[in-house]
Order: sequence, then structure tokens, then C-alpha cells
Amino acid sequence: MAGPDLTEIVEAEGHLVDSQLLNTIFDKVIEHQARFEVLHFTIGKTNDEFSQLRLKVTAPERAILLNLLEDLMPLGCHPVADRDIYLAKADRDGCVPDDFYSTTNHRTYVRRDGRWLEVDDQRMDAIIVVDGNKATCRLLRDIKIGDAVVCGFDGIRVSPDFRERDRLGFAFMTNDVSTERRVEVSVRKTLTMMREVKQDSGRIAFVAGPVVVHSGGVEHFAELIRNGFVDILLAGNALAVHDVEHALFGTSLGIDLDAGVAVKEGHKNHMRAINTINRAGGLRPAVEDGVLRSGIMYEAITHGVDYVLAGSIRDDGPLPDTMMDLVAAQERYACALKGVKMVVMLSTMLHSIGVGNMLPSGVRVVCIDINPAVVTKLSDRGSSQTAGIVTDVGLFLHQLATQVRTYQNTEINTVRREADA
Amino acid sequence: MAGPDLTEIVEAEGHLVDSQLLNTIFDKVIEHQARFEVLHFTIGKTNDEFSQLRLKVTAPERAILLNLLEDLMPLGCHPVADRDIYLAKADRDGCVPDDFYSTTNHRTYVRRDGRWLEVDDQRMDAIIVVDGNKATCRLLRDIKIGDAVVCGFDGIRVSPDFRERDRLGFAFMTNDVSTERRVEVSVRKTLTMMREVKQDSGRIAFVAGPVVVHSGGVEHFAELIRNGFVDILLAGNALAVHDVEHALFGTSLGIDLDAGVAVKEGHKNHMRAINTINRAGGLRPAVEDGVLRSGIMYEAITHGVDYVLAGSIRDDGPLPDTMMDLVAAQERYACALKGVKMVVMLSTMLHSIGVGNMLPSGVRVVCIDINPAVVTKLSDRGSSQTAGIVTDVGLFLHQLATQVRTYQNTEINTVRREADA
Amino acid sequence: MAGPDLTEIVEAEGHLVDSQLLNTIFDKVIEHQARFEVLHFTIGKTNDEFSQLRLKVTAPERAILLNLLEDLMPLGCHPVADRDIYLAKADRDGCVPDDFYSTTNHRTYVRRDGRWLEVDDQRMDAIIVVDGNKATCRLLRDIKIGDAVVCGFDGIRVSPDFRERDRLGFAFMTNDVSTERRVEVSVRKTLTMMREVKQDSGRIAFVAGPVVVHSGGVEHFAELIRNGFVDILLAGNALAVHDVEHALFGTSLGIDLDAGVAVKEGHKNHMRAINTINRAGGLRPAVEDGVLRSGIMYEAITHGVDYVLAGSIRDDGPLPDTMMDLVAAQERYACALKGVKMVVMLSTMLHSIGVGNMLPSGVRVVCIDINPAVVTKLSDRGSSQTAGIVTDVGLFLHQLATQVRTYQNTEINTVRREADA
Amino acid sequence: MAGPDLTEIVEAEGHLVDSQLLNTIFDKVIEHQARFEVLHFTIGKTNDEFSQLRLKVTAPERAILLNLLEDLMPLGCHPVADRDIYLAKADRDGCVPDDFYSTTNHRTYVRRDGRWLEVDDQRMDAIIVVDGNKATCRLLRDIKIGDAVVCGFDGIRVSPDFRERDRLGFAFMTNDVSTERRVEVSVRKTLTMMREVKQDSGRIAFVAGPVVVHSGGVEHFAELIRNGFVDILLAGNALAVHDVEHALFGTSLGIDLDAGVAVKEGHKNHMRAINTINRAGGLRPAVEDGVLRSGIMYEAITHGVDYVLAGSIRDDGPLPDTMMDLVAAQERYACALKGVKMVVMLSTMLHSIGVGNMLPSGVRVVCIDINPAVVTKLSDRGSSQTAGIVTDVGLFLHQLATQVRTYQNTEINTVRREADA
Repeated sequence: MAGPDLTEIVEAEGHLVDSQLLNTIFDKVIEHQARFEVLHFTIGKTNDEFSQLRLKVTAPERAILLNLLEDLMPLGCHPVADRDIYLAKADRDGCVPDDFYSTTNHRTYVRRDGRWLEVDDQRMDAIIVVDGNKATCRLLRDIKIGDAVVCGFDGIRVSPDFRERDRLGFAFMTNDVSTERRVEVSVRKTLTMMREVKQDSGRIAFVAGPVVVHSGGVEHFAELIRNGFVDILLAGNALAVHDVEHALFGTSLGIDLDAGVAVKEGHKNHMRAINTINRAGGLRPAVEDGVLRSGIMYEAITHGVDYVLAGSIRDDGPLPDTMMDLVAAQERYACALKGVKMVVMLSTMLHSIGVGNMLPSGVRVVCIDINPAVVTKLSDRGSSQTAGIVTDVGLFLHQLATQVRTYQNTEINTVRREADA
Repeated sequence: MAGPDLTEIVEAEGHLVDSQLLNTIFDKVIEHQARFEVLHFTIGKTNDEFSQLRLKVTAPERAILLNLLEDLMPLGCHPVADRDIYLAKADRDGCVPDDFYSTTNHRTYVRRDGRWLEVDDQRMDAIIVVDGNKATCRLLRDIKIGDAVVCGFDGIRVSPDFRERDRLGFAFMTNDVSTERRVEVSVRKTLTMMREVKQDSGRIAFVAGPVVVHSGGVEHFAELIRNGFVDILLAGNALAVHDVEHALFGTSLGIDLDAGVAVKEGHKNHMRAINTINRAGGLRPAVEDGVLRSGIMYEAITHGVDYVLAGSIRDDGPLPDTMMDLVAAQERYACALKGVKMVVMLSTMLHSIGVGNMLPSGVRVVCIDINPAVVTKLSDRGSSQTAGIVTDVGLFLHQLATQVRTYQNTEINTVRREADA
Repeated sequence: MAGPDLTEIVEAEGHLVDSQLLNTIFDKVIEHQARFEVLHFTIGKTNDEFSQLRLKVTAPERAILLNLLEDLMPLGCHPVADRDIYLAKADRDGCVPDDFYSTTNHRTYVRRDGRWLEVDDQRMDAIIVVDGNKATCRLLRDIKIGDAVVCGFDGIRVSPDFRERDRLGFAFMTNDVSTERRVEVSVRKTLTMMREVKQDSGRIAFVAGPVVVHSGGVEHFAELIRNGFVDILLAGNALAVHDVEHALFGTSLGIDLDAGVAVKEGHKNHMRAINTINRAGGLRPAVEDGVLRSGIMYEAITHGVDYVLAGSIRDDGPLPDTMMDLVAAQERYACALKGVKMVVMLSTMLHSIGVGNMLPSGVRVVCIDINPAVVTKLSDRGSSQTAGIVTDVGLFLHQLATQVRTYQNTEINTVRREADA
Repeated sequence: MAGPDLTEIVEAEGHLVDSQLLNTIFDKVIEHQARFEVLHFTIGKTNDEFSQLRLKVTAPERAILLNLLEDLMPLGCHPVADRDIYLAKADRDGCVPDDFYSTTNHRTYVRRDGRWLEVDDQRMDAIIVVDGNKATCRLLRDIKIGDAVVCGFDGIRVSPDFRERDRLGFAFMTNDVSTERRVEVSVRKTLTMMREVKQDSGRIAFVAGPVVVHSGGVEHFAELIRNGFVDILLAGNALAVHDVEHALFGTSLGIDLDAGVAVKEGHKNHMRAINTINRAGGLRPAVEDGVLRSGIMYEAITHGVDYVLAGSIRDDGPLPDTMMDLVAAQERYACALKGVKMVVMLSTMLHSIGVGNMLPSGVRVVCIDINPAVVTKLSDRGSSQTAGIVTDVGLFLHQLATQVRTYQNTEINTVRREADA
């Protein structure tokens, strides 16, 4: 039954050891029941040097070899022989040829007419469309008849983000979802990362679920906004509704957050909040008219944060600001996320996975949730750059705002002392 | 500062003790820092008899009294003096007067011109609109200028569903989220309930997340459909995508379900699945054209199950069948759920909360999830009739399908023996 | 098959409604497939008045009736006809007659020679031994041949602790394990309760797991000890080992708690810690000799906290202070817990269940754990007075210590202002 | 402040890439803020060949270098220059010199008089004592004055178990705690592993918590015992108590497992169970006298399973068989585990960690628990060879017993067909 073995030679270069690419490459070959032979391997002599691999893979049949090569590509392996990409035309809107190339979230290059083009708008599960010298990630649903679509796997190079070894001390946290950690330390590392991003004039996006409100995080999150750490706010209808409910009535889901008990019209307060915003014509007019005078959405609006509220099947209302057309909402999310350097995810699996799908792998992600399963799921879906912190999100924000304040006082005092001297 | 005390006399009738209404009524009074005096209480002498309560509540100020009375209403308490409802006109679309009455999910009556009208389309967080002799629950967003809206709390009677004491042995499970239970027993009770509903020609809705596929539940769920236990299927895009991926390629999220390892093009299989269905023009044409030949969606289509796929921010694709306009999707869900007697929720918090919001409290709900927090959240949001089963959803469906088969064999043999005799 | 129905008349008195005893009594009757008829019920007219119940229960056979009566007893129901207890002799050590009465954790009285005796050392799952006018709870293993053991259920009255309606606002928390709560509020309530206990010169016990150390709680817990809030400390070997490791080396399980990374000999630090304490001859000599100069155990020893370390199968070492004879350890735990008014359980299921078993139901219990299942389990095992707080234990202690400090500053300032005035 | 840099050259050999040793070695160096230079690296050309590493590490001070070398040792790195071990005498019982070597759970060799000795009784957190040509792991508490203890880190070689690449398809499961997996596949792999062990005449230990009983696993676990898959049973008092309660009264914690409701004397059944076994004089006499006729303990006793019940602070009773002296219990556990090839852990964190501490790393471990945190904790504590399956333990055992039966029928039929042919 078995024909002659088929082989291919592939190469990879980079921090292959510390990014765990090397062992993953070997694992993949064995998983496919193929064999490998290392033709050449030069290890990076120091922490900064690259390693180089040349590998011969052998499979018993062509289908296996092709599948294997496809799986090796996201790990940075490419055939030694440089060929141009194969382009095929989409024969109808929203459809591509069967052998289309489906993207990862890693930086990708395609070779056309002997030249390597970097692919724009990198994200996972997209199609690469080539137009002249421009290669772009496009969602399947946005494919138009006649688009030139990258197929097969010739002429494609994927450049997995090499995990920088412990530069920010976050390496240890990646995929580490233990609850037995000192949260103050994770807060400090998150803040360090946020400050680095801001110093480079980078933008930070926050993805937030309503638990931020229920768990008492409103004032602390508002403080982060006032301190300029929040450039983009991506959330669902519920965050805004409960934030407004809290601002107007002091309750969240009918629970008085200060007293901790269900009181006074609690049941209907979130509906009253929606009614009030509906009457004002939306959140922004409500702020302008002085109807909404505090809270997360108030701060976001008064500080020019770019916010997007995406609807879902469980929404009450929704608020006029909530986008119930999810195709449009995904586009607004993706647009807001362009060029962000860091994303902080606060207790919302739905929106976090949504955002994770849209990000290139170079963006740093910190995910805070009291449920360890949320971080695990994010990683399982390919957002492996995620650092997870399993803790109470209200207390986390409390700590984060406190450390911001402490830091700023220190900085101010330093400036003063220097001025005095 | 305190003026003279204000009092009101309210009445309630029903299974006040076993539904835990009596103690909740007293708790509410104390929570509001009001006082109560029982003027009259007749206890149901036996398990079947009603109890009757007449209660005087006293509050230090009018606002507290009004809030208290509002909170007592969902518990079945109404003022002794029967008054008509107060109706006010909506002054613009999507807005109601500030003192609007926000509904619970319990059966509700309103009194107009001295006559009690049962409210149609009962669900929580809705507005009651009265038109002639017809009172109907309407979503805030569906309110039109000029609608006659029930305000205040005169003339409203809420009839909380009295928990039937252990008729199906489910009482014990309500809100009981322990993982230390024998699942076979819960499966048997679920099946008994399902069979009772079917014997009365009732309809059963299933709400299903993609974990049904990942955890190996496809063949078992398909068997339930073939056996006629699934009238309605409510899900998101991901369930259908992974079901199709499994049907076409044998994988789910790129994991080969039979081998349990990530193999062969896994990464792109779910995108290929979407592309295939896109090309066919949707799930139904894919079934008709023989492209899709097995799985949950295949069985649902070939057995006439009413299915609705509602979109979300995390969707890939989506499939042509997935409704990305969430207002329309909520309407289709609500429409499909009209008159159902039972809902089984399989491992999806998002869609389960969405469905819970739409159901009147008389519908029996069974929620299966390996994460205890999901059941807790459903109950917190008012779907207190939910029986939770904390277990592996794949194994649960395996058990359920096996028990269905065992039962049917027994029944067939009984029929045969009777025919022989 | 069925003989004539058998009936019995029972009575109960107390806060039957708000303690949810009334509905539980009725539920029990139905569960046993018996029937009930309310002969008489007087409801407490106000929040302070008692209710009174006289109930006729009817069962199809004697065994069911007896079982039912036994199950009704912990709910405060007793036969109308007062009879004396039935005493039988233990025929060998550690064994009792088959129909022995097994205690609950509620206050209990037994009737001998027409007089009611309150049972001493109340705890659950014990035997009542009567000696003259003294009735005492005794563990089965401590029963000696010839002991007079209460059997059957004549002459026994159980007085369930009536849940005080929201006196401390804790009612709402009982068995409420939602993660969607504002922890600051729970902290405040816990502190209020602790201060009330201390004002009445009551004692407070803490049960603590090693997560207190891992999650950065050491300094905060130490502060609570210094402030006099910790009278008793019950823990396992691991808490002490990791606390000593942290005090000596700054690590916990080899993780540097300040840097958050695994560094420097981490792996062996806990073994070095044990070796150091072994050499000193135990924790107390280590403190006296200046070997151990900080941390939880240091503060406990220098502030006269009564501490007990109970061993387990997973212990390394153990430290000389750890009791590896678990019968002796249980006795020391029980002895330390005598007369405590409040127990705070910090992230240890094992020791929390152990302590829960020993407490009478009147002791207030607050259980803090990031895992909701721990609180659920405690309640399932009968410690229903437990208020659960699902949060990060390190941050909880941080908050608690901060609120203690804030409170004390306020108090001091008030005193000063009053002195000034 | 900084003196001249200090360097050392170390070597390692083995499956350094696929066991992820290579990147972990590099990570360790960076963590310690040291530097590395690869002097030589030969990669294994194929899946079967070893790799070889020679590494120069440089640290700014001696303490850091020593700590680093200590941390590299468990990863298989040893100084190039072979030296003999340094032995020091214990100066008192239970104490060792400060620079003692603390073991890992990996196979270890020590060099004495130029010869390498394999260390006996390998386990983690032990001391190596050398007596003539014999080197043995000994617990700190078992150290006697005068014992020759290995100190420093000269002359020690650790041989980390190289993870075999996917031989049993378990690699993918290691540390993978997702709940989104098909359990049937994990069951099949577990059974394959169990059968392989039995075919090589290896022994299998089960560690079981009481959830096995509560979740309905008794009959299925009993079947595994009858089929010869259980050589050793390690558990706590609670497993045996609830198993006996179930055997005698059909309940577990007072829940009727078949009806799923709390019935008939449930509260006291576990105390009655203990009383019955006490009267019989223990489990074994209870079986011999016909008092105990079914269940896990019955099958274990009648099939010669070596069982050990270790006590804990939460134990009721305990049964006469339960060892309440935990030093003795640890010794019996360790003794029973000698030479086992596989351990299956069923829903008990306490006993699983206890067992994990005692095992050399070459023993295969499968851990089943519905709570993902349990598996995570096991791995955090060094039992990294653990494959975790997050599922309902009752249903898992049901599946496992079913697959055993299916397999055996297939085998029998094959034998028959062969006999027929």
C-alpha cells in the first residue's frame, strides 16, 4: 500500500529554543507520523543570538507531507527552495478555493515575483488577498469575487513572535493560571508594562465585563482613565448598563454596592438606567446634558476614550450606543484595535475571545479573571501571548489604581526634589 | 427628621411556605428597614392547601414604603384595596415614564375597569402595554410613542410560580450546584421530565454551546434529535461551525475527536468548514445537496427542528445561517420559545442567560455545565427555576442517549409481550 | 401490604419562618412520602415574636414514621407528649447500641426524670452520654463500655439556631458564593463582626492554609495578630513551613514573593526552613533564640496566640510543632475552639471542614476562598451558618488590615477631638 | 561593588529538546541574572538520538553562581569536571548540615571514590545518605546523628525523565487541564496504559477520594478491582466510611444514590456505618463475618488489594483500619508504592499530593478531577509527569469499566474465532 517515502527540506531561524519552537517542530513531525532528520542546527550561543535549523522531513504519502508542511509553517519553517506564492481567484463572494491559506496571528510574508511582501492587518483565521504589491489579511466574509487569494503554501513565511525571555518578568506568568500567587506582584508587572507602552506613545485597550462594576471596580477603573492609561474601551452592553445604573442609583444588578445588600427598587434599576439613557438619546448626550455625571462611561466620554459597545443575545435594552449588528461591531472593534501595543482583559470571556481573534501575536495581553478557565480558553484559541492573573477583578483594579497613585507621588516628589536642588 | 410612620396593608395567597415566599416577604421588610405586623395568617393544613397572609407594613417615610411595596409585588403581595392600574402614555419611541412597572418572569395580572387581565408574553424586564382588554409584555425598545404603559404599582398582581414540592424529585436540585452527585440519577430525572413533556405534546428547547462538539456529544445529541426530544435548537455560530467541522473532517477546533490529538490541518479546518457551507449557500442547501451528511445541524434540518443561530463578537465566518443582527436574533429566539414547556441548556453561559431572560418562570429549565459558576449566575439573574447539573456535558449526553435507548427497548418489549399475550 | 396509617403529633416553636424551618419541616414530611396536617400555627406577629407550630404527621408504616421523626428533630420538632430519654449501656469501647442518637451541631436538651438538661460540648455526629445530671457530647471513639448512651428519640429537644434576620447584614451572604460581589463590603462586614466579638470579650479563631503565604497575606495577617484579632490559630504543617520559609528566605514554595519569580535555591528552601526549625527544637525555641524573627508564627508566638498545627499525609518534615497523631490533634483543635464566638477560615478546605465538624451552630463562621466549591462543601456538611466570600485571600487580608488601620485612626482622632473639645 | 565574573562549565545529555530541558536551562540562567554561552551543542538528528550540550555560565558573584548550578542540576546539567560528592555527618537526629542536597523526584547518581552510585528510593525533598556503596533517599525526620549526608553539589548527577514523545498519546494531555475534551478518548488512553502496565506484570495504585462514592462510582470501581487492575488502594477514612455507608444503607452522606434525594436517617448513616465496623473490629473482620458484603472495601479485601487508609483532621470515627498516626501512615503509603508503574488519582487533592511527593518521576500518573485546579496544583508541586483529565469521576469510572468489558468481550471472541479456525 505504501509508496516510496516523500521528503522535503525546511528551514527556520530565530529564538527557536526559548520560544519553544524547536521542540514543537519536532513534536509536529511525530504527531503526523512522519520522521525528521536534522541536517544542520546552529544554536544561539547567547541569549541574544538566533538559532538556525535545517530539517529534512519524510512522510509515507503526499497528503501527510503536505499537511505536515502546513502545520510547520506557523512555527516559522519554510521550504529551502524559495518559490512564489500561488494565487487563485475567488469564484464568488465570501468563498475561496479549497486549498486557501488560512492565516495565523503571527507576522507573515508572501513572495511575489521574487520579492517578499509583509502582509498587512495580520490576524488569525483570515485569507491573504494580494493586489499588486500589497498583501492583506481579509475575513472570509469580505472576500469578493475575483480577489486574488493565496493558496497552497509556497512562498509563505511566518515569523512567530519570539517570546522575549523575561524582559518584563511576564514570561513566568504566561499560561500560568495558578491562584496561589501574590497579586500585588502581578499588578506591579502589569503597571510596568502599561507605563512602558505609554512612554513609547503606544496605545492600550481595555476589554471589560460587567463584573468590573459588580465587584466594585468603577472608581478605580475611572481613575485609570483619568490618568491616561485607557485609550480604547471595548465592552458589551451590560458593562455600560450596570455602570450607568451604578452612577445613577448606586446599585449594580440591584445590589447596593456600598451596603452589599439588595435594596430599593433594585430589580428595576437597570431598566430605569436604560430608559434614562434612551431618553437622553445615548450615552454621549447624557453626559453632555449632565444626566450622567460619573462612572466608567462618563470618564471614557469626557477623556476621549474610543469606546465600542458590542451587543449580544443576552442584552437588555440595549442602550442606543450598543451595536447590535455584530458584523459592524466586529469591524469597529478591529478598527479600534489597529496598532495597539497592549490589551488588558477584565473578566469577560466573550469579548476577550473576540478581541483575541483580531490581534496580531505581537500585542501583549494581560487577562484578569477569578475563573482560571477563562485564561486557559484564551490560550487554547491561539492567543498564547496572554499573561493570566487569576484574582478578584475589583480588588485588582483597586491595587492597580493605588500603585499608579503611589508611583506618581514618588515621581512628583522626585521632580520637586530635583527642582529644589 | 422623621415624620409620622406610614403604613399599608397587603395580602398574599398560595403555597407561601414551601415556595419560601413567606420568609422572603419578611426579609424584604427588614431589608428596607421597615417593620411588619402579621394581621392574619392561615397556614395550608396539608401539602395541597393554600396559605393566606394579611400583613401590615410600616415605614418611616413614603419613599421607603413605595420601594418596599414594589419589592413585595413579585412575591405575590398586593394591596388589600383593589385599585385599577395607572396608565401613562409613552412620550417617545423606546422611552417610558420614570415610574414604569418593570416585569418579573412570573405570571402577572393587571386590573382595568375593575377587571383582571392576564398579561400576555410574560418575561422579565419588560414593560406592560395595555390596549383595550389586552395587556402585553413588551421590550423597552419596542415601545412606540403613545403606547399606554402600566406605571406605579396599583392594580398589579404577580403570581409567583409555587415550587411544586418534589413532584419530579427536582426540587432538591434547584440551585444545588454540588459536584458530588451521581449524574446517572440526574440524567434519569431529566429524561423523566422530558418524557412527561412529550406525553403532554409539549415542546422542548435545547440551548447548546460548542463544548457539546468538543466533548464528544455529537452522536448522542443527534440520537436525541432522531428520537424526537428536540423541538427547538438555539445556539451560536460556533456550535454549528464545529459541528460541521466534525462532520466534514472529524475534528473539532483542530482536535481529532477520536484520536484526541491535534492532527492534519486542524488549524484551518473550521475555516474550511465555513468556506464549504458558504459555497453551498447555507446549512440547509448543504444538507439538500448532500454536502453535509451527518451531525447535529444535519439531524436538526432533516428532522424539522426549529433552529436559530445567534451571532456574537467572537464569531468566525459567520455561517450564512447565523443572524448577526442581534435584535432580529433575539426576536427569533423569543418567537421559537413561545409555549415551550422545558429548556435544556448545554454548556453555554451566553445563550443560556439570553434564553433565561425570555422565559416565563413556569418553564422547567435544566442546565448542564462542568463549571458550577454558570448555574449560579443563571439563578442570580432571576431564572430561579433552574435545576443545575455540574458534570461533563459529553458524558451527560452519552448517558442520556443510553437511557433513552434502554427505556425504548423496555417499552418495545412490553408492547411485544402484550401483543403476544 | 399497607397496614393502618400511623401518626404522631409534634410541636416546634421559634423563628420558624425566617429560619426557613417551617418549609424545611414540610419538605421533610413529603420527602419521606408521609403526609402532614397543621393542627395549629401561630405566626410571630413581628420580627421579634416567635411562631408556634403543632403538626400531625402520618406515615404508612412504623419505620417511615420513626425515620421521619428523627429527621424532624434537628429542625426543632419534638413530640407533644414529653417523655424521658431512653438510655442504654455501651457494651464495648467505641461502640454504641444500633439505635443511638447522633447529634447535630444545634443546642440540644435531653429530659431525664422529668427535667431538661442542656447537653455540654455540643457538636455534630457525636453521642450523648448521660452521667447523673450531666449530659455531654462524646465522640464515638471516646465511648467506654458501660457509658449510658441516649438512644431512640424520646426526650430530646433540638434548638436550631434561629438565623437572626440581617443583624450584621450577613444573612445575604450565607451560602451565597457568587464571585460578582464587591469584596470591600464583605471585608467591612467581617471586621464589624470581629469588633463586636472583641467588644464582648469573645475569642476569634482563624483557620489558615498555606495560600495565605503564597498569595502575599503574611504581613497583613501578622498585623491582625498584633491588633489582637487572632486568639486561636489552627492550621496544618504547610502554613507554618511556608511562613518560616518566607521569613527566612523571602520565598514561598520557592517563589520570591516580592519579585514573583522562582529564584535562588527555591526548590530546597522549604526543606531548609524545616531543617532550621528542627535544629532550634521547634518554632517557640526558634523565636526565643532569635532564629525566627518575623511572620505569622513569630507573631502568634510573641502575642500569645493559641496555635495548633495538625499533620496530614502530604506533609514534608514535619516541623516538631506539628501533631502527627491526628486523634491528639483533633482533641487539641476541639479544646482550643471551646467557647469561641467566631471562626475565620482562610483558604483551607481540609482544616475548615475539620473545624466545622467541631463547632456548635451558634458560632459565626466566615470562609474566604477563591474557589467557590469550598464554601459549598462546608455548607453541604452541615456548617450552614457559614458566610462565604469568594476572593483572593491575599488581597482580602490586605483589605482587612487596611480597614483595621483606617478604623483605628478614625477612633484615635475622635478621641483626640473629644479630648480637645 | 561587582567583583570579577565567575564562570563554570556544565554538560547535559539526553532528549534535551523534546523534554523542554534546553529552553528551561537557558531560562534558569536568565532568571538568576547570569549569562550563558553555548560552547557545544549537538542536536539529536532523529527522534531517537540524544542531544549533547556544553554550556558556560557566568555570574557576577559566587552566591549566584552556586544557586544557579544548584537549579541546573535537576535539569540534568552537571559540571564537566567530575568530582566526588562531599559528605558531612548529621550532628543530631532530624537535622542536617545547612548545605545539604535536597533531592528531586528524578533518578539521581552520586560519585564516590570515582564510582557512580544510583540513589535508592528516589523521591523529592529527601536527603541522600551514603553508607558504603549504598546511597539512599531518606526523609529529614529519619536522619540519625552520624549519618553521612550528601552536601553541596559536587558529584551529583540528575537524570530527568525524558518525556517520551507521544508514545501513548498522553504527551498532549500532560498539564492540559481543558474541560473541552472528549473524555471517552482519555478513558481509552488510560486503559491502554493500564493494560500495558499489567502485561509487563507491573503494579497499579489507585488513590481515591469519597467523591468516588458520592458520584456513583462504587460499582464501576469494584469492577476494576475484580478485573485485576487495582493492586494498591490509598485513601482516607472518608472513602471507606462512605463506601461502607453505601454498602450497608444505600446512601452516601445521607443521599440515597439511586433516588438522588436525602432520605431516611441519612444524617446518621455514616455514624451507624462506623459503629457497625467498630463492633466488627475493623473492615477485614466485617468482611469475614459477612457484615460487609459489597462495595470498594469489600472487593479490595476479597481480592487481596493492598489498601492503606490515612487519617486526617476532618475524620469522623475513624474506622479501626484508619491510621491516625500520620508518620506511620506516610511510611505505609511509601512502602505500598514501592515499584508501582502507574498511579490513578481519583478526586482527592490531599492524598494525591501526598502520593505525588513519594513517587519517582518515572511513574506514570493520571489524575481525574472535576476541578481543574487539582491537576494544576499537582504539577506545580513537581509531579510534572501527571496527565490530568477534568471530568466527572463517577462517569469516568462508568466509562472505564464499560471499556474494560468491551475490550474483554472482543478479546474473548477473537480467541474463540481463532479456536474455531
